[in-house]
This record gives sequence, structure tokens and C-alpha cells, in this order.
Amino acid sequence: MTTTGKQLFTTLESDGTLTVEIAQSEFPDPTGNQVLVRMEAAPINPSDLAILTGAADFENADYSPGKVVAKMPEPFNSGQKARHGQRLPAGNEGAGTVVATGDSDMAKALMGQRVACVPGTAYSEYAIADAAMCLPLGDHSAEAGASSFVNPMTALGFVENARMDGQKAILHTVGASNLGQMLNRICLEDGMGLVNIVRKDEQAKLLKDQGATHVVNSSDDDFLSQLKAAIDDTDAFYGFDPIGGGKMVDTCFKAMEQVAVGKMTEYSRYGSNQQKRMFIYGRLDFGPTTLTPSYGFGWTLSGWLLTPFLQNAGMETVMRMRKRVLDNLSTTFASKYKTKVDLEGMLTRDAILDYRQMKTGEKYLVTPQG
Amino acid sequence: MTTTGKQLFTTLESDGTLTVEIAQSEFPDPTGNQVLVRMEAAPINPSDLAILTGAADFENADYSPGKVVAKMPEPFNSGQKARHGQRLPAGNEGAGTVVATGDSDMAKALMGQRVACVPGTAYSEYAIADAAMCLPLGDHSAEAGASSFVNPMTALGFVENARMDGQKAILHTVGASNLGQMLNRICLEDGMGLVNIVRKDEQAKLLKDQGATHVVNSSDDDFLSQLKAAIDDTDAFYGFDPIGGGKMVDTCFKAMEQVAVGKMTEYSRYGSNQQKRMFIYGRLDFGPTTLTPSYGFGWTLSGWLLTPFLQNAGMETVMRMRKRVLDNLSTTFASKYKTKVDLEGMLTRDAILDYRQMKTGEKYLVTPQG
Repeated sequence: MTTTGKQLFTTLESDGTLTVEIAQSEFPDPTGNQVLVRMEAAPINPSDLAILTGAADFENADYSPGKVVAKMPEPFNSGQKARHGQRLPAGNEGAGTVVATGDSDMAKALMGQRVACVPGTAYSEYAIADAAMCLPLGDHSAEAGASSFVNPMTALGFVENARMDGQKAILHTVGASNLGQMLNRICLEDGMGLVNIVRKDEQAKLLKDQGATHVVNSSDDDFLSQLKAAIDDTDAFYGFDPIGGGKMVDTCFKAMEQVAVGKMTEYSRYGSNQQKRMFIYGRLDFGPTTLTPSYGFGWTLSGWLLTPFLQNAGMETVMRMRKRVLDNLSTTFASKYKTKVDLEGMLTRDAILDYRQMKTGEKYLVTPQG
Repeated sequence: MTTTGKQLFTTLESDGTLTVEIAQSEFPDPTGNQVLVRMEAAPINPSDLAILTGAADFENADYSPGKVVAKMPEPFNSGQKARHGQRLPAGNEGAGTVVATGDSDMAKALMGQRVACVPGTAYSEYAIADAAMCLPLGDHSAEAGASSFVNPMTALGFVENARMDGQKAILHTVGASNLGQMLNRICLEDGMGLVNIVRKDEQAKLLKDQGATHVVNSSDDDFLSQLKAAIDDTDAFYGFDPIGGGKMVDTCFKAMEQVAVGKMTEYSRYGSNQQKRMFIYGRLDFGPTTLTPSYGFGWTLSGWLLTPFLQNAGMETVMRMRKRVLDNLSTTFASKYKTKVDLEGMLTRDAILDYRQMKTGEKYLVTPQG
């Protein structure tokens, strides 16, 4: 017996035609450790947009009810050659109610419960999920639990990663984002130093009102000296950046190095011995990352993704992190949404042109049941 | 009692005036573990040029015997603010004869011996060196031993570092350089895979004549597919680059990722799980490094310097590496020079404009005793 329901699919053809549409799908009965979740809420995260909209031209797309066809420009079309012709589901995470389960005890124990899950197919009326990755939400609503994986585990992951690497402070280049505010709350709770970079005065105020001690505004004329003072105060030689393109990482490395050089007693042509570490964990800017030769050789820049981090961290750490999220879902790990849309509502011109901008504090929540 | 002799100094003033000159110096008696070496030969390595000439304009400099005054353009002048006004010696390494020693047994044992050393002041008739870093050369000439530290230990360091990180192959972006040829010989001896990138057919031939199995020419139209084939053959997801500026690192990451993606059975929006690692160990190109968002998040780029690597590797590893260099000084670790110049000869227009280009196979040797 299969269940049928509406589901979102995104298909990129080799000629650059991107079709995103809602279609009827059949969901097989869950087996083994799987559960079938009737999806009630799923956020649109920046990590979803990579596959959902990418760099396609939605200004000049063809919109019809439950369907949009847009052109993917080069080099982004060729860059995604590996997905050409594939009809892909989307939606990393969400929450809903378990309506069927596989045979495993872990799966059966979830029957009828409201859970948060990470199916990768969350923009759908139903989704098959791994019981081991489901978080029973108890009395929390689906809306409250919809974003309990990606942002909370990423923000916690930064702090775990920093601690593993012996750091006592973190720099975050998008301080006022949903994730950034969460990171600020975690760092305050854990006594981890945090330097927040924001772009606007109201974002600085928002973070300071939430107890942030170090907030620097990249729009200020004296941004670099503000940043250096904050790094000097906290020893934040270790940072996370979701922008990717442009010069933000370069600026952070420069500021870190200038702080370190300021403490040296002797000139070295190779720069300071201070190790400087930055991670790019997103691509708000699809442009190239530019690194100038102005901070010696003691620096490392990496891509950062949640899944490999969790795999490396091990099950015990992951369980501890998930428990902390659940215990503090409506406080530390609460997410806010600008608006709610159903599956068809996701694909209107107004919605796409709005949420694809990934503006700070303007996250969308999808409610697949309408 | 002090010893006097000629020594090279380089001074950058805050207005961008760079003065490089030969002057009389007084060398104090060595104490403790120090030795005084009468310098007979010292190479001009790319790592020396950073402080010796930098990005200054030597086309339009004022040349007089034993002295040259040039202008350092922006942003390079401001970038070296920390050295403004300081009269700095130069010359990382060289070889000569120990003519006086400190009181330590290690120092005294070197009296009268020909040694290779790493004084940082090698462009000089005399240099104070640390006995612990001296390599007694036995019957080898000073010329044969002059380059026994920087290039040999760096090339060996790459292989040690790769092994520590569980790699079975290395990619090197300047395959035909003095260091590159050395690395090729080490990798052949050690059974470590090596992908060499070169820019010219004659460089490819040179390396192949020396037994290199994977040589790809970046000037060929099908460079990227050559590179991918070589990476696929060797599993070289781990590379070293002395260029720094431009797109070479980006191209290597792209090729590595495309090889890894080609082996995936399912599309992932995040790219492959293959960890890709590159190190920038020099700055043949002072321009910015450009990284495009085209190889997912499984990549890490770091600066790489010999001294911190050796400090991390530990004394035992360093001793083993140095013994290997000494045992194979005239074979695996032999360096070739285009020409010899004395201290005054270093500062002629013809010499500077030639050696600062750091052309493959055109290294200069300085003979401070004339």
C-alpha cells in the first residue's frame, strides 16, 4: 500500500532550463528503520536554495500555478552538470507526524508522534525519514520544531569545533542572521568569546540587546579598526563565514594578522606565528573568494559542512548536541519566520523573489498541508 | 675580539625607499651554542627575495657599486610597515668554514669544519649560526652544501606531511623547479605518487627524462583533462603551490573535485565527500588568490612554511630528514646554479633583474669571499 500526496521537484536540463514544480507523488511504505512523516512545517534555509533556485533568473521566469520555469545562467548551469536531467526533491529538514513506520523498534516507537526530521525531501505532504535522525517533539508544535536540525546543529557545531581545536573565541561574519543570533545565545551560555560582524546599525542593536559583547559594523568607516579591537579583546583567530564570495574572509585574516603582528617584538618577513583559521559554510555570494598575500603563511581556510562534521564528531557528541537542542527548543534554539506559504505558495513570483534574497530575519516557513 | 667583514643589508623606509647595500660589519665572538662561519657560498632562493628585493622597481633604480636604491610601490610598501626603518640582514642559508665557536661541546666540535648553516644572514663574509642547525659537510664543497637546508627540507617536508596525513600522492604546481626536481627524486625513491605541473614542453621533457611518471603542461589546450587524468591515476588530492596568486590553486581544486564527482553514483548539491587539500608555500605571484565556488565544501587551503612544519614534526623527524639530506647531497638533493656572483655582484642591475624573475633552473649562488 502506498500513500499519495503533493511534493516539490526541481529539475535542471542541460540547456539550463530549471523547472520547479509541485506534482503528485507516491510514497512507499517505510521499511526497517524508516518512518513515514506527514510533513507539517519545513523552513527554507539558504542550504535549500542551492538546489531549489540556485542562480537562475526568476525575474524573467514563466510562472503558472504550482510551477515555475527559469533559465540558469552560465557558469552555474555547467557547474551543476552532475544534476542535469535529474528530477530532485528538496527541503533538508522539517517537522510533522509519524503515520507509518518500518519494523525496527526505534521506528515503531515513533508511531503517532510529532517529530523533527531531516529527510532531504521536506517540501512535500509526506516524507520518508530515518528514525535515528528523528527528534520527538513532545508538546512542541511542528512549527517550533521545523528548524531544529540545520541551524541549531550548525551553530552548536561551530562551538564544538572551536573547542576541539582549543579555541576560546569565534568570529562570525553574519552575526545577525537566524543562525548568528542562535550562535550568540550558545556562546553566552558556554562562555565562548564571539565577535559578530553585521552590516547595519539596527542589526548591531539587535545583537547587543541580546547580550552580545562584540559587534562590529562592516558599513562603518572604521570597520577594520573595530574588528581588530574585537579580535584583540577576545583572541578570535577562528571564524565562520556563510558569504563565501568577495573579500570578507580576506578582511578577517588581515585583521587577525594585524592584531598578532602588533604583539610581535621582532619583524618577520613570513608574518606572525599566530595560526589563523576561517571556514566558509555557505555561499550567500556566488562570486569568487579573493585572498590577498597580506597575512603571511600561518592561515588555513576550509569549506565547512554539517554532515561531515557530525560524522567526525561521533555519535555520542551528536546525541549530546541533539538533546541540548530539544531541551532548549523554545529559547536558545528558537527560529523566527517572516511568513508561511504552502507548497504552491512557495512557487509564486513574489515568494521566490523575496526568499531567495536570504535577507537577515526574513526566513520563510513552508506548511505542506496548506 | 670581534671579526670584521662585508655584509649585505636591506632597509625599507616608510616612504617606500628600499636601500640594499654592502657594508662593513663587526661580528661578535660566538657564545654558548653559537659558531662563527666564514661564509663561502649562499644561494638566492625565492624565500630570500621577499626581503631582498620584494616588489620594488629595480628597472628604474639607482645603482652604484655595492648599493642599489629602489622604490617599493603600494600596497607592498604599506604591507611591510613592520620593517620600516629597520636595517635587515638577508640570506637564509649557506655554507662555509667554522672559524670560532662558543663554549658548548656541540659548538666546539665544529671548529675548523666546513658546515651548511641557516643563519638568516648568509649574504655576508661571516655569519653567526646555531650549532644545532649546522650540518658538517665532510668532503663536500661549500657550493655543494650551500643549498642543503631550504629546498631539501621543504621537499622532504612535503612528503613527510603527506604521509602524516595518510596521503599516497602529491600534486606540485611547479614541477620543474629546483625544488620540484628534488621532490620528483624523493617521490620516486619513496614510492609516493607525484603529479607535476609544468608550463613548457622542455620542462615536461626534463622531468620525464628524470623518471617522472605524471607531468602535465598548463600551456596545453587540454591541460584540465590531462590534470584530471593524472589525479585519477594517482589519487593526488593533496598539493603544494609556490605561485600563490592567480587561479592555479583553484584549477587544482576543480580538477580534484571533478575526478571525485566522476566516481559518485548519486548527485549531491554539496559536491563530493573527497577531502581536497592544497598548501601555498611561496609567492611567485604577488597577486590575489582566486577561489571559485565550484568544488563544494570538502576543501582546505593553507599557507605552508618550513619552520613551523619542522617545529611540529619534532626533533627526531628533523634529524632523520637532515641525515638523509647529508647522505644524498650530491644525488637526490643536489642543486644547480646558473651563475655565481660575489656580494657586490649581487647588486648590479643585470644580476637583480635576472635573479628576481626566479626563472626555473636559473638559480644564483653568492660567493661572499669573491
